[in-house]
Amino acid sequence: MAFTPADPNWRTRIDREFAAQHYMRTISTTLGSVAPGEVDVVVENHKAIGQQYGYVHGGVVGALLDTACGFSTMTLLPSDHIVLTVEYKVNFLRPAEGEYFIASGRVVKAGRTILVCEAALTADGDSDRPLATMSATMMSTPDRGVAAG
Amino acid sequence: MAFTPADPNWRTRIDREFAAQHYMRTISTTLGSVAPGEVDVVVENHKAIGQQYGYVHGGVVGALLDTACGFSTMTLLPSDHIVLTVEYKVNFLRPAEGEYFIASGRVVKAGRTILVCEAALTADGDSDRPLATMSATMMSTPDRGVAAG
Amino acid sequence: MAFTPADPNWRTRIDREFAAQHYMRTISTTLGSVAPGEVDVVVENHKAIGQQYGYVHGGVVGALLDTACGFSTMTLLPSDHIVLTVEYKVNFLRPAEGEYFIASGRVVKAGRTILVCEAALTADGDSDRPLATMSATMMSTPDRGVAAG
Amino acid sequence: MAFTPADPNWRTRIDREFAAQHYMRTISTTLGSVAPGEVDVVVENHKAIGQQYGYVHGGVVGALLDTACGFSTMTLLPSDHIVLTVEYKVNFLRPAEGEYFIASGRVVKAGRTILVCEAALTADGDSDRPLATMSATMMSTPDRGVAAG
Repeated sequence: MAFTPADPNWRTRIDREFAAQHYMRTISTTLGSVAPGEVDVVVENHKAIGQQYGYVHGGVVGALLDTACGFSTMTLLPSDHIVLTVEYKVNFLRPAEGEYFIASGRVVKAGRTILVCEAALTADGDSDRPLATMSATMMSTPDRGVAAG
Repeated sequence: MAFTPADPNWRTRIDREFAAQHYMRTISTTLGSVAPGEVDVVVENHKAIGQQYGYVHGGVVGALLDTACGFSTMTLLPSDHIVLTVEYKVNFLRPAEGEYFIASGRVVKAGRTILVCEAALTADGDSDRPLATMSATMMSTPDRGVAAG
Repeated sequence: MAFTPADPNWRTRIDREFAAQHYMRTISTTLGSVAPGEVDVVVENHKAIGQQYGYVHGGVVGALLDTACGFSTMTLLPSDHIVLTVEYKVNFLRPAEGEYFIASGRVVKAGRTILVCEAALTADGDSDRPLATMSATMMSTPDRGVAAG
Repeated sequence: MAFTPADPNWRTRIDREFAAQHYMRTISTTLGSVAPGEVDVVVENHKAIGQQYGYVHGGVVGALLDTACGFSTMTLLPSDHIVLTVEYKVNFLRPAEGEYFIASGRVVKAGRTILVCEAALTADGDSDRPLATMSATMMSTPDRGVAAG
């Protein structure tokens, strides 16, 4: 699907808002590939994101996928709108093990208010074996000062 | 619903496995109230779990609720079984703002293999205004060495 | 939670729109208890809604819960708005067997555009043993002629 | 993904069990394309599956997708196992309008006990514009007499 961003400065906005996400720094993520309607979030495996059995915590998996969906949505927003997560669901397909992980999000339907996204988490570049998948509903809403703040 | 734990040492196990979750320490959570089939996870608000608009990151919200569901399940498991998250869904009802948050999980149906849980996140003790709700499917599976490791 | 309907004729609207749902007649449902933000949908068990193992089809379970959520939402809408289902999720807790079923929906958060609902299906009045639960996102949107049609 | 059915008579079983689903006859569906791990369910639009605004009822959409997922799972089961739906989630992307609909299900991860499926509903053969998508968790469980009954 080909999307056209509404904001000519969308690419700069993605970098700026990603850098402003304290939590993304807390778990040491970086932005990967970025295109209109499609954003990857990358993280190297490290102990601080693990659970008690040696795998990455399921809540971190959800957070990576949610962020990939949220920023995929953000690529398409008018500059005076922000994105809110309405809901997401994660299915866990395999234990989250590997050296690095990519959460790849993409918009599958862009309504004016509601955008639906999908995302998958893969390890070590093996896109044939997703570890987890997400479907998410995002909402585009006028910025009442929070994004500019 | 009244549940009877299968493992006489279930309460000790909860403490031990919660302490072993690196990620729960990364985001500075503690265990709250714990009973058979019901576990609370508590976190004070701090910058490291925030997103760019000043609220707690939606991925952290999911992680707290997932952990509350997982440990609620763990209270009921035989000592030689571990819990895996099959899937979860989060609905976001209100912006995650407040001084502290409690993610309250509970088992709503305990099958032998599949357990279904619900959880809600509240702020500052205001249980009438949940910020987010989760439904989750958990799986009880024989421990092949990971939990003992 | 106490809700105040925006439309003084909301109760009449519920009856009119429920009667207009061809599919609800196809599977022989009736409206049960109706209050602001809370609607029950009732169906007697019959062969036409069954799957191959003698239980009610999981898709019928989802349809009953979706309808209970949709009409719970409709009780709160302005007269010139209609309700659309954005998404729903069903967890199946027990086999759907019994003589009659009640799908009880309720609004848990009423935003201006987005409303979040929960619903549970019970059999033969046994509210302690839900057969299935739903969380759903509903959207209130201006009627562009469809409801009046 | 290439799957190998465990049951040499899997194809016959699909036809037999689909024919035994009373509810699928109630809403006049037929089986479409069938392959290991992939099943299509087809329905022509007709008034009996509609809601009050002229579109197909969201509950019917869920039922078609659930059935496509369930039968996709069934293609891979041992002959003495049946499939149960653990949970499903539907995202509605567009109004369900058209002359005929295909619900295409496929298994994305086949565990021994838990199988994860995805499905999409399209109208009039336009696979670029899905009307709704589903993710579902299915369980393979020993048949205790119900399937043979």
